[in-house]
Amino acid sequence: MNAPTTSVSLKDALARACSEIENTIENLLPMVPGDESILIEAMRYAALGGGKRLRGFLAVEVATLFGADRQAALRVAASVELLHAYSLVHDDLPSMDDDDLRRGQPSTHKQFDEAIAILAGDALQTRAFEILVEPETSPNATVRANLALALAQASGSAGMVGGQVIDIRGEGRALPLDQVRRLHALKTGALIRYAAESGAILADVDDARRAAIVAYGRDLGTAFQVADDVLDSTATAEELGKTAGKDEASGKSTYVSLLGIDGARAEARRLSDRAREALSSFGAQADALRALADYVVERRN
Amino acid sequence: MNAPTTSVSLKDALARACSEIENTIENLLPMVPGDESILIEAMRYAALGGGKRLRGFLAVEVATLFGADRQAALRVAASVELLHAYSLVHDDLPSMDDDDLRRGQPSTHKQFDEAIAILAGDALQTRAFEILVEPETSPNATVRANLALALAQASGSAGMVGGQVIDIRGEGRALPLDQVRRLHALKTGALIRYAAESGAILADVDDARRAAIVAYGRDLGTAFQVADDVLDSTATAEELGKTAGKDEASGKSTYVSLLGIDGARAEARRLSDRAREALSSFGAQADALRALADYVVERRN
Repeated sequence: MNAPTTSVSLKDALARACSEIENTIENLLPMVPGDESILIEAMRYAALGGGKRLRGFLAVEVATLFGADRQAALRVAASVELLHAYSLVHDDLPSMDDDDLRRGQPSTHKQFDEAIAILAGDALQTRAFEILVEPETSPNATVRANLALALAQASGSAGMVGGQVIDIRGEGRALPLDQVRRLHALKTGALIRYAAESGAILADVDDARRAAIVAYGRDLGTAFQVADDVLDSTATAEELGKTAGKDEASGKSTYVSLLGIDGARAEARRLSDRAREALSSFGAQADALRALADYVVERRN
Repeated sequence: MNAPTTSVSLKDALARACSEIENTIENLLPMVPGDESILIEAMRYAALGGGKRLRGFLAVEVATLFGADRQAALRVAASVELLHAYSLVHDDLPSMDDDDLRRGQPSTHKQFDEAIAILAGDALQTRAFEILVEPETSPNATVRANLALALAQASGSAGMVGGQVIDIRGEGRALPLDQVRRLHALKTGALIRYAAESGAILADVDDARRAAIVAYGRDLGTAFQVADDVLDSTATAEELGKTAGKDEASGKSTYVSLLGIDGARAEARRLSDRAREALSSFGAQADALRALADYVVERRN
């Protein structure tokens, strides 16, 4: 693999968005007194525990590209990050992936307990939808309703959760490439695509621009997952901040098991290039999104 | 306790709404091919397994009282029932209430497995929000966004899930009456109140009428819970379709442990009467809602 060529400007933009998204989540999950405070603690633990904020960054960058209000964009970014955090909390549970470690820290059910982790995930999902439909997100109610609708489509049974079920059912048996593609398009792709699309929905752009962003988000999401499979089979646990080589050990079909390391790397590059092409009608303001397409296939964690 | 005085017209209205809500849920959770079909099966198992449809009935009756479209009202009713179903699936999990039986049938994690039950609950929540913001629910986007916002407030960390956490944390220690009231206001009251309010939001009524319905829904919800505690300590498992006497066995403070059976019955009646009073500005079209206030404190299961 070539040395990462992540541009300085992408790094800066990522770092800035990361910090702004973190602050926004902080404000959107205020502590409360009473016995239920442990729930908010667990929600904050799960949602503020770092992470690349790739999804939130996508939402902010696309919204900014189209001139949406940055504070509103940060709310949408926070919403998609809370949705993502809920999915990780539930994925890590003993009856699911049974992962004790997340981003190098105890996963939520290890830090708290299983019941609190399930409920924190539940409440994070609720909060993600709540934020989108609150008037502060947009004065335009159609925009608010459409944001929530697109998030539901991306994360429910026909999206992320559906993909998770296919993943669980497929464990221990070899899936053909088209089924692995579909699994990931649902499990991780749909939410990444939504993250990009949400910026376009917030900015209320025309169908052509929204379609270009959806195409970009779709390819970026797949590229991300292919690169993830490559990382899982080549990086160390220390680099990843989570257990490495787990997919291989559990007998899951991955892009690497189906295409080989070199084939998977080439596939990730092809998808990343196609994602960039989807942005061809946009000017230099989309450069951070273009650089992001490189970053997702070149990252080391 | 007096013999139930549930009026024939309430029984008819309940039976009609029950069947319409069941059909609506059927249509809103269509089966799909592929490995994820088991997820939809589990969602349907959890959501179509009977139940009184009290929440859905409330939504439909209030919406009808205010002249909203019945098909739209049934969608809102289905949404609140899906949200309720998700909460039951997660509540029954081994790390939560660990209940093997629900409505006389194996609970979802017994019928399927724990992972599928968690994911089915997750997807039911998502679908509940999705239905509300779909254009079919209302041509008015503000109505759609407000329905979703009110559902999020009623079901998230400051509502149902917050109440569930207080419940879990309070197990095995005696809570004073005001904390038991708050627990139930959140855990079960908020969603019942929302169910009534959702009909008013859908019909886009003025603030005064919405406030009257909210007051009705709040007292009805508390009356329901007090009556539930009475039932839990007096009815048999066969009558309830679930394990009886569980709260007492787990050392939970209940209205019965705090007020005694007779005191709890009187409290339920007082709340039911107050719920009826909240409807005083409405005519005979609200009679089913009035009869419902009697029904919730006189029911045997």
